[in-house]
Amino acid sequence: MCIFCKIISKEIPSYAIYEDEYTYAFLDNCQDAIGHTLVVPKQHCVNLLDCPIELLGKVTETVHKIAKHYVDDCGYQGVNILNASGQCAQQSVFHLHIHLVPRKAGDNINMWPDNARQEMNLSTVCQQLQLK
Amino acid sequence: MCIFCKIISKEIPSYAIYEDEYTYAFLDNCQDAIGHTLVVPKQHCVNLLDCPIELLGKVTETVHKIAKHYVDDCGYQGVNILNASGQCAQQSVFHLHIHLVPRKAGDNINMWPDNARQEMNLSTVCQQLQLK
Repeated sequence: MCIFCKIISKEIPSYAIYEDEYTYAFLDNCQDAIGHTLVVPKQHCVNLLDCPIELLGKVTETVHKIAKHYVDDCGYQGVNILNASGQCAQQSVFHLHIHLVPRKAGDNINMWPDNARQEMNLSTVCQQLQLK
Repeated sequence: MCIFCKIISKEIPSYAIYEDEYTYAFLDNCQDAIGHTLVVPKQHCVNLLDCPIELLGKVTETVHKIAKHYVDDCGYQGVNILNASGQCAQQSVFHLHIHLVPRKAGDNINMWPDNARQEMNLSTVCQQLQLK
């Protein structure tokens, strides 16, 4: 059983933020930002790519609900959402999880990756990637 | 009219990846990663926090569809998803947009923010943020 399945089943303890029939949300133990939360489906799937769209909808509903709770009720003014799907995309735990980081002005957190501009031809890229 | 509304209405040209009744997807012009795509709802909303959940569901469906297309059809093996909601969360254009970055092994991109570990008491944080 994967570590997040063990957390969902309470075999491993976690700091629960929210739970419903389809989803579970708990504090990330990386402690890089106060309130850094992980939202996961209870049904095991690896990442966004193999998650059934109906279940992904439930995960999205929970992300939305918690984001609004953090801003409406907990003194935050914004949120960042992050997901890594695939080892090459820097995914480290292979159970779908959406990172939700509550933000406030002057929190001295940087949740934006910093990559240098690359040479590319957007027209060519567009032709290669367009979904017809 | 906001810049993304102008892009959606074709008043400003963009490199279209996908379009349906509710959503539009186009290449980000920041050019930090090949295929960096923005998925937006056609109906204007500022960010995740004011987006009606039904519309956010449509945006999620489009993100899922394009992510699978990139991996199934375009030679990628994973994706990153990012969203900034709120100026304090480093949002820069105030029309909801989900960043979708296709990834492959050895692409030399870092899509993960790097923040130092902070001192915090997860139990206290949990009590403050729990959604009952």
